[in-house]
Amino acid sequence: MSLPEGLATPALMVDVDVLDRNIRRMAEASLSQGFALRPHAKTHKCLQIADRQLLAGARGLSVATISEAEAFARGGVDDLFIAFPVWPDADKARRLRRLADEVALRVGAESVEGVQRLGDAVRGSARPVEVLVEVDSGNHRTGVPPGSAGEVGKAAMDAGLAVAGVFTFPGHGYGHDAQARERAARDEERALSEAARTLRDLGLDIQVVSGGSTPTVGRWQPGPVNELRPGVYVFNDATQLALGSCGADDLALAAAATVISVPAPDRFVLDVGSKVLGADASPWVTGHGYLPRFPQATVGGLWEHHAVVGLPAGVEGPRLGSVVAVVPNHVCTPVNLADELVVVQGREVVDRWPVAARGANT
Amino acid sequence: MSLPEGLATPALMVDVDVLDRNIRRMAEASLSQGFALRPHAKTHKCLQIADRQLLAGARGLSVATISEAEAFARGGVDDLFIAFPVWPDADKARRLRRLADEVALRVGAESVEGVQRLGDAVRGSARPVEVLVEVDSGNHRTGVPPGSAGEVGKAAMDAGLAVAGVFTFPGHGYGHDAQARERAARDEERALSEAARTLRDLGLDIQVVSGGSTPTVGRWQPGPVNELRPGVYVFNDATQLALGSCGADDLALAAAATVISVPAPDRFVLDVGSKVLGADASPWVTGHGYLPRFPQATVGGLWEHHAVVGLPAGVEGPRLGSVVAVVPNHVCTPVNLADELVVVQGREVVDRWPVAARGANT
Repeated sequence: MSLPEGLATPALMVDVDVLDRNIRRMAEASLSQGFALRPHAKTHKCLQIADRQLLAGARGLSVATISEAEAFARGGVDDLFIAFPVWPDADKARRLRRLADEVALRVGAESVEGVQRLGDAVRGSARPVEVLVEVDSGNHRTGVPPGSAGEVGKAAMDAGLAVAGVFTFPGHGYGHDAQARERAARDEERALSEAARTLRDLGLDIQVVSGGSTPTVGRWQPGPVNELRPGVYVFNDATQLALGSCGADDLALAAAATVISVPAPDRFVLDVGSKVLGADASPWVTGHGYLPRFPQATVGGLWEHHAVVGLPAGVEGPRLGSVVAVVPNHVCTPVNLADELVVVQGREVVDRWPVAARGANT
Repeated sequence: MSLPEGLATPALMVDVDVLDRNIRRMAEASLSQGFALRPHAKTHKCLQIADRQLLAGARGLSVATISEAEAFARGGVDDLFIAFPVWPDADKARRLRRLADEVALRVGAESVEGVQRLGDAVRGSARPVEVLVEVDSGNHRTGVPPGSAGEVGKAAMDAGLAVAGVFTFPGHGYGHDAQARERAARDEERALSEAARTLRDLGLDIQVVSGGSTPTVGRWQPGPVNELRPGVYVFNDATQLALGSCGADDLALAAAATVISVPAPDRFVLDVGSKVLGADASPWVTGHGYLPRFPQATVGGLWEHHAVVGLPAGVEGPRLGSVVAVVPNHVCTPVNLADELVVVQGREVVDRWPVAARGANT
């Protein structure tokens, strides 16, 4: 990633050529094998990137919250899946109903009570809301065991909702070795197949069998799963690089940071901290980010507005006042901290994209 | 902290009575011993809280960035210290000059080149900009060794800047035991005294000797240090509770979260994650937060929009759909993620305060 001259720091930069290549590659790889692609937009929260994903062939977007769905609906996206077991309180019920009048809406569910509330919330909406039952494929976060999908599916039918499919998040695919990722992809396939079968046994027309995170997505063979929801691939990050699911040339986002202090030859301090890079630790990265120009450096200390970067003996660091790029450990967090992304092509700033769904957590 | 009925989650709540008590106590403790109080506003980023601090007797505010200073200046605060070694690029130089025309401005510095650029930036401003030399008192982040303060001070004089004092951040005072905090406070005192002496030896009129984080602030005795800059004390957090620098009744901020899943009797899942609570690990807290109603619970898993909370055997958890409070590990990060704070008194929502300086990182 090249650094434009005169960029005020700290700032999040996106290399638009790398971004476009990442989007195109994922679309080609998914669509050529017959998968529908529904990228997770929580990673970028930008209308401009959503448009690029849809233009490349994505069927719609996945989002994490109702307010993310609202932001993308305002931007003209008309096919949205809230990949989260929404619990509609009074406010959320009103907003879900409004969304259901405007866009093709799918919502995640994993409890009988949850779908009952969801049914109450969207009853009589202009378009039928589709439910996808969340299945736990080994990550042990939310989702029912595959064999229990039927209970949720039945409750959804009783609540007047269309049950369109099943989904899972294979978070345990973030393993260091290819075998762990392979195993997670197989777990995912097995869990989704069983859940889909359970629902079909109830007479439901299960159209959507949805899985896939960025690390597992390349592991797929066409089979029972027919929709993929990767998110991070648009930008990639230091974790994906360490996992081997991308190369250094595929890193599309970095923070531009100024060297504000050089206390000793073996370390320097940057004007970025957890309020720019996020504070996500990564079991696969030593420290708090990756510096493409100083790949041997370690961001050993991270405060809110300081990053202390260590260098091995004999490696020359940057000069006081110079600007360097830092690729975050986990890209979804820093994007949600920024009001805009500075769009870079070559060494030029060509645009600034608002992070339209920043802070859209409800 | 009481939970109001019908609050849409996730949301950050501030208990205004606890907040006011925290502000009053810190002001009384500091002022009664003759310290000037200049609280760090990066913790709250709210004009309403700044006003309360100033009303309680704070002399001005500390901030971390020029854009935080701009936000508080717009809100009417006229005495601001940017407690950071600012490196003025072209954009920052323009903005510093504008600030210097409007408010009493102090800026941190710790390099000869940094103060030279600062001098160029603010030359001819309506009010003289004062420099405070940053000293490393043992935290090893930024700041010069105490004996080197003179070089920076001399360069500042040469650049036409007024050198008003010295400051440090005793980050190593975040130790588990009282002795570590005591030692950090003594380190701080020693380093600041030496740096101040070095500058006075140059003939400079050193007025400000500034230190103090929330954990060390209670450790002070009047002496060479004459200004304190605690930040976190307004809200406190799970780390301060674990360190013993506050009690459970002094926690003024928590995230309100809904129980969206109860997969087993020993755990439940909340609709808050790192995009609400922040992802700061704390060496003094097991997990990612503290639940006042379930003090034995551990937030063992944190994703962007999910917190998986574990319970010890025999402890009954909350029901699906109920709302619980989660106190974050480190309060400065979640506040910077939220657009507003929901102000609670008793069980009523009495106001909503915009986080005016949210994302103000440049």
